[in-house]
Amino acid sequence: MLSEFLLAEMGRLGAQDSLPLHRQLYEALRRAILDGKLGADERLPSSRHLAQDLGLSRNTVVAALNQLSVEGYLASRVGSGTFVSENVPRALHGSAQAAHHGLSTAPGTLSARGLELARRFCAHEFEVQPFTPGIADFSAFPVTLWQRLQNKHWRMTYPDMLDYNAAGGYAPLRRAVADYLRVSRSVHLQADEVIITSGTQQSLELCAQLLADHGDTVWVEDPVYWGAAKAFTACGLALHPVPVDEQGIAPTADDERRPARLIYVTPSHQYPTGAVMSLPRRHQLLATARAHQAWILEDDYDSEFRFSGPPISSLAGLDTDDRVLYMGSFSKVLYPGLKLGYLVVPKSLVAAFKQAHYDLNRPGQMPLQAALAEFIEMGHFSSTLRRARQSYAERRQCLLESLAPCLAENSPSGGRIGGAEQGLHLCLYLPPQTNDKALAQRIAGHQLSVRPLSGYCLQRKDLKGLIIGYGYAPLSEIRQYGPLLAQLINHHAGARQAQPA
Amino acid sequence: MLSEFLLAEMGRLGAQDSLPLHRQLYEALRRAILDGKLGADERLPSSRHLAQDLGLSRNTVVAALNQLSVEGYLASRVGSGTFVSENVPRALHGSAQAAHHGLSTAPGTLSARGLELARRFCAHEFEVQPFTPGIADFSAFPVTLWQRLQNKHWRMTYPDMLDYNAAGGYAPLRRAVADYLRVSRSVHLQADEVIITSGTQQSLELCAQLLADHGDTVWVEDPVYWGAAKAFTACGLALHPVPVDEQGIAPTADDERRPARLIYVTPSHQYPTGAVMSLPRRHQLLATARAHQAWILEDDYDSEFRFSGPPISSLAGLDTDDRVLYMGSFSKVLYPGLKLGYLVVPKSLVAAFKQAHYDLNRPGQMPLQAALAEFIEMGHFSSTLRRARQSYAERRQCLLESLAPCLAENSPSGGRIGGAEQGLHLCLYLPPQTNDKALAQRIAGHQLSVRPLSGYCLQRKDLKGLIIGYGYAPLSEIRQYGPLLAQLINHHAGARQAQPA
Repeated sequence: MLSEFLLAEMGRLGAQDSLPLHRQLYEALRRAILDGKLGADERLPSSRHLAQDLGLSRNTVVAALNQLSVEGYLASRVGSGTFVSENVPRALHGSAQAAHHGLSTAPGTLSARGLELARRFCAHEFEVQPFTPGIADFSAFPVTLWQRLQNKHWRMTYPDMLDYNAAGGYAPLRRAVADYLRVSRSVHLQADEVIITSGTQQSLELCAQLLADHGDTVWVEDPVYWGAAKAFTACGLALHPVPVDEQGIAPTADDERRPARLIYVTPSHQYPTGAVMSLPRRHQLLATARAHQAWILEDDYDSEFRFSGPPISSLAGLDTDDRVLYMGSFSKVLYPGLKLGYLVVPKSLVAAFKQAHYDLNRPGQMPLQAALAEFIEMGHFSSTLRRARQSYAERRQCLLESLAPCLAENSPSGGRIGGAEQGLHLCLYLPPQTNDKALAQRIAGHQLSVRPLSGYCLQRKDLKGLIIGYGYAPLSEIRQYGPLLAQLINHHAGARQAQPA
Repeated sequence: MLSEFLLAEMGRLGAQDSLPLHRQLYEALRRAILDGKLGADERLPSSRHLAQDLGLSRNTVVAALNQLSVEGYLASRVGSGTFVSENVPRALHGSAQAAHHGLSTAPGTLSARGLELARRFCAHEFEVQPFTPGIADFSAFPVTLWQRLQNKHWRMTYPDMLDYNAAGGYAPLRRAVADYLRVSRSVHLQADEVIITSGTQQSLELCAQLLADHGDTVWVEDPVYWGAAKAFTACGLALHPVPVDEQGIAPTADDERRPARLIYVTPSHQYPTGAVMSLPRRHQLLATARAHQAWILEDDYDSEFRFSGPPISSLAGLDTDDRVLYMGSFSKVLYPGLKLGYLVVPKSLVAAFKQAHYDLNRPGQMPLQAALAEFIEMGHFSSTLRRARQSYAERRQCLLESLAPCLAENSPSGGRIGGAEQGLHLCLYLPPQTNDKALAQRIAGHQLSVRPLSGYCLQRKDLKGLIIGYGYAPLSEIRQYGPLLAQLINHHAGARQAQPA
């Protein structure tokens, strides 16, 4: 029954698109899952059986199953086979729609890419609660000062400032960003190489669109920042997960055999593990990029919030070969809704990036850019940053103290803190047998929001833990809820141990 | 020599991607052009010769040549064959880069998609001068009032307003847009179906990403609004140009045989010809979409500026089948740099669009959205619109009077005005033998900027003319430069006629 459906669907795909066989099987299986022909938790035939039934080589079947597993459609359980995941977006296919459509070109529904993009990655809700990671505290943002600067530039506004801008952004802002990056991140650059974007998502999309073609491989860290994974998926790139260890991304010989067109990394504070890429690794990655003739996309999303030790030079600062595109955002220091970030591109790419950015996005918001430029020039950015850094360092310390019961040598949960003293979140590693998703859900029941580390993993199964944010919760809430959080974590571990083996 | 390169390149592509033969040839030829192996204006061997040399069927060769021609890489001249176009972006390949790379996976350079996206479409510069089309006059925008509203909302700003927004936009703004569209555009909708975007480019991109897959066909109007064409190209869609006549998009039987996943139209004022889609055509297009199970993307970019006659209901208003996604922008009534627009999606798609929009773009700018909502609710939008409409109507009239010498029955240029009395530009049709690109260039020499109609055409060769904007130039400039413009147009026609036949 399943084989018949798969063969019919593969025939259709083969005739239509001349896809390779493993890709046809991948599409056919995905369709079977999305259409509910394969239900959640349903067990798949073994790869050997599938290969026999379909008349395919086992390699072909394994390639298709691996890809589906990387994308989260399938999950394997040791000793019992491969199953359809529980969290596949079948809900998007309303029953009314499903009734009058069949396959992947079906009307009245999303495209395969659309289904992928509309799928929730790691979080199940948009909730923001104490300990939600990735969120800064903008309650202390100097709104009145900001308003005064905006007003000043609105008063001076001549018509040009109300128009789109094709020049890569407001010139004084590009200069201010260049000055800041030269000093604080050792990036060698001129203002002309800075392109003002609406933030990191737009920076990533521009890079993917201009530097890679549909089907090209992008190396991403595993675990990965899911916003980047979504942006690459939207641009049709094939994600190739490369494991991260305590020194950052660590490509294996197998990875080296799958050369990338793009390599996406968060070297100063890996998201979400917090690992800092070591200097030897940085040189190694630059050499790999040179050997593969790949571009490196360096996302320096929270390097502003380093609490101890000297920073390591950015990859862009070490790059002698013009292979690194460097990006950052003002969301975390100022406020997220500002929607301004920057992308630094090698000189040879400036003209093309400016042109395509203008054509695809029509950048604007000049008065806001002008206000931001002045905010930086007048030193308000530095002072806001200084205050925020101190406040986050205190919160981190307080959270660590609250979590002490999970970190003690004899604690039931066996927790360990990973990564550098930096940023707005920390990574609490838990033993590999922990069901971190169930734990996160249980914590959510107490109106606290943390993320399971395994939710950020694409391929690896060994990482379990919690990503806990301290950017959003004020110190008082961390003091109030931190002990509860620690208690829930230890309790979960205790309950697990109490279960029969 | 050429055949050898093509065969080698096709072999490489075939081995790598299992592309169909016509696509391999397309890629190989495109690469030959981009790498300068085929120079500008160079004549190609005939399709028969190419087929013989490469051992391919002639159909395969013709399919590849047609696609290159649609995309502007090739141009054919009646009676003398097929030539490489003059305006291919070879300049992007710096000689230093070209030296150390070979083919399409070359490093240190843009991807094939990137080259396509960085290519200028119709305009050669970002210049804004009298008569540049597509640009509104925002010098009359009530900056002080706007600033007051912004300040009010910044004063009331509670932290949530500084955050990203996952709800499809600021609720009062979504309501205000819904109220406006119900009344003025007969769109049946509820506020929950409105998604606030950063403008039409983002609306188009979301639709293409969520509703179509790489390689899916999108019908676009020929001539086409190039911003939309770029957005679709970025998302990997195959553009299928469908001719436009005085009643709007007019699919032929051939077009019907190439069913689309998406149909992109500008029915209330086709860009750039200005044609208004007739009511029978609207019903026909809705029926076609139903038959093909395609989505219609209705871009209502300037319906606010209708100077005479009652408006025809939008396609979204006529749609009984939830097949139309409707989009508009505030750029033309307020100011372009505002970067706020709206997308109305069928109820069944709301959740998916909100989720993907949030994940891919992290929408923000809540205080600005709040100011805009109040601007609309307090009636300022209507009054700004009323003033602007009157001013544009006067400018259009003045421009038409200036152009009278080109429109008279015995005028050398044989011009004719097409389209409705609406919007910010008009389309001056000129006889098919006119070299409208040369004419536009000559006019640019006088610091006036118009666009050649043929520059918007994808496939058709019969349309010549000029797209002349009156949105940007104040009445005094139109009075001053309009007569010069008319003189240049007539002079060009005279010069052409004086040439030996």
